[in-house]
Amino acid sequence: MSFLNNRLSIELPIIQAGMAGGITTPELVAATSNEGALGTIGAGYMGASQLKEDIQQVKQLTDKPFAVNLFAVNLESFSNEIDNMQHFLDGFRSKLEIEHGEDFVKVNDYLQEKIHVVLQEKIRVVSTAFGVLSSVLIDRLKENDVTLIGMATSLDEGQKLADAGYDAVVAQGYEAGGHRGTFDVSKYPDGNNIGLHVLVQELMDHLTIPVIAAGGIHSKQQVDACLEMGADAVQVGTKFLVAKEAGTNAAYRRALMKAETGSTKITKVFSGRPARAIRNQFVREVEGSGIQPLPFPIQNQMTKDIRGAGKEFAIADMQSLWAGQGVGAVEQEEAAAEIISSLTGSSGVDVAGTEPEKEE
Amino acid sequence: MSFLNNRLSIELPIIQAGMAGGITTPELVAATSNEGALGTIGAGYMGASQLKEDIQQVKQLTDKPFAVNLFAVNLESFSNEIDNMQHFLDGFRSKLEIEHGEDFVKVNDYLQEKIHVVLQEKIRVVSTAFGVLSSVLIDRLKENDVTLIGMATSLDEGQKLADAGYDAVVAQGYEAGGHRGTFDVSKYPDGNNIGLHVLVQELMDHLTIPVIAAGGIHSKQQVDACLEMGADAVQVGTKFLVAKEAGTNAAYRRALMKAETGSTKITKVFSGRPARAIRNQFVREVEGSGIQPLPFPIQNQMTKDIRGAGKEFAIADMQSLWAGQGVGAVEQEEAAAEIISSLTGSSGVDVAGTEPEKEE
Repeated sequence: MSFLNNRLSIELPIIQAGMAGGITTPELVAATSNEGALGTIGAGYMGASQLKEDIQQVKQLTDKPFAVNLFAVNLESFSNEIDNMQHFLDGFRSKLEIEHGEDFVKVNDYLQEKIHVVLQEKIRVVSTAFGVLSSVLIDRLKENDVTLIGMATSLDEGQKLADAGYDAVVAQGYEAGGHRGTFDVSKYPDGNNIGLHVLVQELMDHLTIPVIAAGGIHSKQQVDACLEMGADAVQVGTKFLVAKEAGTNAAYRRALMKAETGSTKITKVFSGRPARAIRNQFVREVEGSGIQPLPFPIQNQMTKDIRGAGKEFAIADMQSLWAGQGVGAVEQEEAAAEIISSLTGSSGVDVAGTEPEKEE
Repeated sequence: MSFLNNRLSIELPIIQAGMAGGITTPELVAATSNEGALGTIGAGYMGASQLKEDIQQVKQLTDKPFAVNLFAVNLESFSNEIDNMQHFLDGFRSKLEIEHGEDFVKVNDYLQEKIHVVLQEKIRVVSTAFGVLSSVLIDRLKENDVTLIGMATSLDEGQKLADAGYDAVVAQGYEAGGHRGTFDVSKYPDGNNIGLHVLVQELMDHLTIPVIAAGGIHSKQQVDACLEMGADAVQVGTKFLVAKEAGTNAAYRRALMKAETGSTKITKVFSGRPARAIRNQFVREVEGSGIQPLPFPIQNQMTKDIRGAGKEFAIADMQSLWAGQGVGAVEQEEAAAEIISSLTGSSGVDVAGTEPEKEE
């Protein structure tokens, strides 16, 4: 029995990843939780009022628990030393016929406000990426009986989460789509890139909190393998990107269904932070330019209008097409319920090949 | 029941990887096969007479089947455009007080001769890396009832092996130590880097021949997970590097036992072909120089004397310290029998947590 089941009465050892950027609609989160898995609102780049609205909408669609995913560190940042990259990006803007970029960038993620909303709304699970929440915030969440799940890309990071009082840790394998969760990207500029089954084993061997496997998981066989290995649950992202309920735009969906296993790479061109995406024109041209991406979240803010235009004009080549290595097996849009049943065999058919035991 | 068991009566679903370069002593190969797993002579850089000698020695130590691992493509190569790299490497040679390099490089792997020895000696299993054997050689081996195992880093490569008549395919995950098996490194200069559990699943989904999982495997839980997923067997390298019977030199052994999970990287500095090794001074300096390594096997030949001196003088910083990501869990020298029993729980204790069924 998993800790999700023990603490939250969640039936299935499946977590829908809290992907940021409009993917995790209230419909996706609620459908996932209604199926007995754990839905997650990806609130990474969301404002507090948007988060509140989304939470209230999910609550109208399910009475099961669901999670909110946040960046563990407030992204507050400002820079006006962005000339080279901004000038290069203006080339894309000209082609897209959108306004050229400004000569400074300012970002604030309003983490404190979002935690306030989480507590007001009595959210029962918070998951975080990119680091460890401050002890003040951890204390506030724990006083309110919130279950805390952190994300680690190395044993050192897992240890930091456990020491800070997190209840469970997601082992984010090298295979995973989107941002590497690596805490210190100045020390590990490409992220820690440890394959899933090595990382899960290492975290299990050295930590006492439950370990959740994430990265490249798209099949029941993989889920069974992770649980057999000793993982407490699995977290799935890419497969939910093409869920019918997801907010993923049509061009991105098509790119996901077309992509092969080898078509992703880890790149910093979109956000300044290493992240796994499908190779497209934007990746090739920015990497080919030799101009270094600005640090996260500056680069992210700078490319936001271009990625936005890519979505609006249905141009996959100008979007950040986050995807894990399992993308080669993502071939069709399905309802969240179908995705979950394909991962768990919860239709009652056990495809893993074990004979049901006879009752006598 | 695995194909190894069916075809060769090998009891355990464990293959000791055919690591080249003096690692796989007759004692290691025989001890592995005697335990019921499949030992492998790593004959990649071996001459035909050395191979014959090794085979005969193994036969004196076991009557169980064992494998010979070869490079699928003859490495015949010559180059005299090596000035820049040779000059840079002479810096290391000066420090090591060995002779400076020549102004040309010549390599021949004598693949045909080695196949001849394999057939003379009635070897029952041949495994290959870096490509597909020519159809002439495949036919000769199959006429002689040799079981053929290829190595793939992508579905495309797996398909080529299956189409050519190979009997099984090793899925080499990104986690694996030593050379990436990627066939066409001009097309994929860093190798295909697909995480093990994604690659195994993909090969199983699309091929009809058995799939063997390789890369980062060091624990019984991982072995059980791979088998649960549907892999037919697993291949283990790094953990056998510190086997008491292995030919691994003392400085290399110490480096392996000291290394952490994150201390390896994929690099071309030793051989010109992407390969996973522990980051050491040689890696840092050659990569830092900005001078491009020559293509495989030219670079390999050029660094051979330096690596040889590194072994002789017990300087780990001047050796190619091949290691997979599982190296963090390699902490002590053990006999091959102990390694195999730790991977299979063949001591009779099932540590996977399943209750033995009651007999009624």
